[in-house]
Amino acid sequence: VVGSHTQRGWNSSPDSADTLEVSCDHVRDVAAEICHRAGIPDDNAAIQIDVLLEAEMRGRASHGLMRLPRIVERIRNGVINPVTSGRHRWDGAFLDVDGERGLGPVVANAAMKALAVMSCDTSIAIATIHNNNHLGMLAWYAERIAEQGQVLISMTTSEALVHAWGGRSAILGTNPIAIGIPTADRPFVLDMATSLVAMGLVHDYANRGCHLQSGWALDKYGNPTTDANAAKQGSLAPFGEAKGYALGLAIELLVTALTGCEIGRDVRGTLDSDAVCNKGDVFIVVNLKRNGRIADRVAKYLDDVRRSGVDRKVLVPGDRASIARAQSIAQGIRMPTALWDRLNQLAT
Amino acid sequence: VVGSHTQRGWNSSPDSADTLEVSCDHVRDVAAEICHRAGIPDDNAAIQIDVLLEAEMRGRASHGLMRLPRIVERIRNGVINPVTSGRHRWDGAFLDVDGERGLGPVVANAAMKALAVMSCDTSIAIATIHNNNHLGMLAWYAERIAEQGQVLISMTTSEALVHAWGGRSAILGTNPIAIGIPTADRPFVLDMATSLVAMGLVHDYANRGCHLQSGWALDKYGNPTTDANAAKQGSLAPFGEAKGYALGLAIELLVTALTGCEIGRDVRGTLDSDAVCNKGDVFIVVNLKRNGRIADRVAKYLDDVRRSGVDRKVLVPGDRASIARAQSIAQGIRMPTALWDRLNQLAT
Repeated sequence: VVGSHTQRGWNSSPDSADTLEVSCDHVRDVAAEICHRAGIPDDNAAIQIDVLLEAEMRGRASHGLMRLPRIVERIRNGVINPVTSGRHRWDGAFLDVDGERGLGPVVANAAMKALAVMSCDTSIAIATIHNNNHLGMLAWYAERIAEQGQVLISMTTSEALVHAWGGRSAILGTNPIAIGIPTADRPFVLDMATSLVAMGLVHDYANRGCHLQSGWALDKYGNPTTDANAAKQGSLAPFGEAKGYALGLAIELLVTALTGCEIGRDVRGTLDSDAVCNKGDVFIVVNLKRNGRIADRVAKYLDDVRRSGVDRKVLVPGDRASIARAQSIAQGIRMPTALWDRLNQLAT
Repeated sequence: VVGSHTQRGWNSSPDSADTLEVSCDHVRDVAAEICHRAGIPDDNAAIQIDVLLEAEMRGRASHGLMRLPRIVERIRNGVINPVTSGRHRWDGAFLDVDGERGLGPVVANAAMKALAVMSCDTSIAIATIHNNNHLGMLAWYAERIAEQGQVLISMTTSEALVHAWGGRSAILGTNPIAIGIPTADRPFVLDMATSLVAMGLVHDYANRGCHLQSGWALDKYGNPTTDANAAKQGSLAPFGEAKGYALGLAIELLVTALTGCEIGRDVRGTLDSDAVCNKGDVFIVVNLKRNGRIADRVAKYLDDVRRSGVDRKVLVPGDRASIARAQSIAQGIRMPTALWDRLNQLAT
């Protein structure tokens, strides 16, 4: 999880008395029952659940189980087709995917597997996906590709939630980018939104009745706010001032130019329950030509980076997620009681 | 120029009495004479000069003519071979380039041209370049690829100049990323270092005797400094706190994993006059499948972004560079008198 070691702490959820701990296996079983009742075939359910659960285990509630009730509603409303894994059309090393309104992770996983095979032949391959639902945490994909010794670059868009640097209203998606790279140690995985915080986190704060930190968001009139509910109607700040804004904008344009998807305020279906999702996803897989020496060099370098501070250890992307995941396995996942109750309702 | 509209103004050079204005044509003629005397063949000189001059014209002195005297020294010292354009070896859509110590822009331009042709067939192609010199401004490449209707993603590394977020010493390159995308209007071009400022800008400030702004750099002991000369011995801050650091780190690893180049503190030859340059460069070209409707949609969207502020116009990457370039053509380029004198010395 990128940035979770800042003083802002904007990837850790606020503490609340109204939470409980549930074992990962128990959460997985309840989620499986929900998916079964919603008409999701078992294979597809396993992928969708794993993407949500892995996020939850790493402390990324914004991309975790809180998204499952909405997925069920979207299936009921006919804007998610739980059966399809998308329609593929190759042109050279370019894979055009019509997601056919499938489950985001199911369609993306099928595309990624096809890329991994093609790139063994062509060395690089790209998939552009339209008509697909929310992907969940991009780190999931990056980690899997890197584990098999390939490089992944992935980008996706969302509804307009972020204001331009100097702007007053939402016009950019949160537009995350993920990069997965094999190392001699565990894979290096970058996965970050180009907003200062994820809108999922704002929803999480709103659910828990917590205030946002100053500088995170504007209300719908373009004024700064720390009220999570007001921010839901307003816009999020881009990360990194002008540069972060510029990167988010480049991702918005790149995904649209490559997938033919909608752009800016015309994007729908990543947060609501009834709109067809018309954002786009891009995956690029590169097959590594180099040998294990580079993997060693990269792993050793990451340890040097960790030691480049003075009074505290410098974190590398994935370090905190790795600790949180181990803790979730050992102690269970802490989630809001209201969410756990809702999940159990859906399962029975 | 990304971020030049921030209050920091960190891409505009400080004013100084000791500057003068020279017409673009005059600068080009003097540079051509310098290159001729240094033994650079005319075709190669034209590319190298254009990359430097276009940066200078856009107000990016850090990537402009101030780099030419060092290029000449590097040729004299045998660490630049001014004749070669690199050796190409294809494997699928993957182009491995041994830069053979060539001029950075000459080797990169040849690789990019080869990618543009290959990607018409394979839809996507990648070049990884090692043993090549400094590329200059990445925007130059992104603009040219986008002008011919293709997408470019480019990344390169440099000597360790940037500290990790929470770190105290330089361990990352300034690791810029560029993205070029065709639109119905002029191409969209993102080109930004992942440091908060470019080391070239710090050198420019040092040359002009100006103070850095607070938060830009640490000295060699890891303490904050505004002294440009102390910063040259220390480290630059990453942009965007933890996220910008994470992106810069991902680029460092990606370029090393793909090109087999050196990493972190082992990188040499991007700032000095006598070390063989051992950083790496990555170029990815994607051939667009979509028609002009998308180019229109993207251009219209950029205008919406520009109008998303209230009391002032929001800038899009390239807007300020475009204005500066037009002004340079009309009024000439403003540069330090000392640099102009040095260039004229080298030309005679």
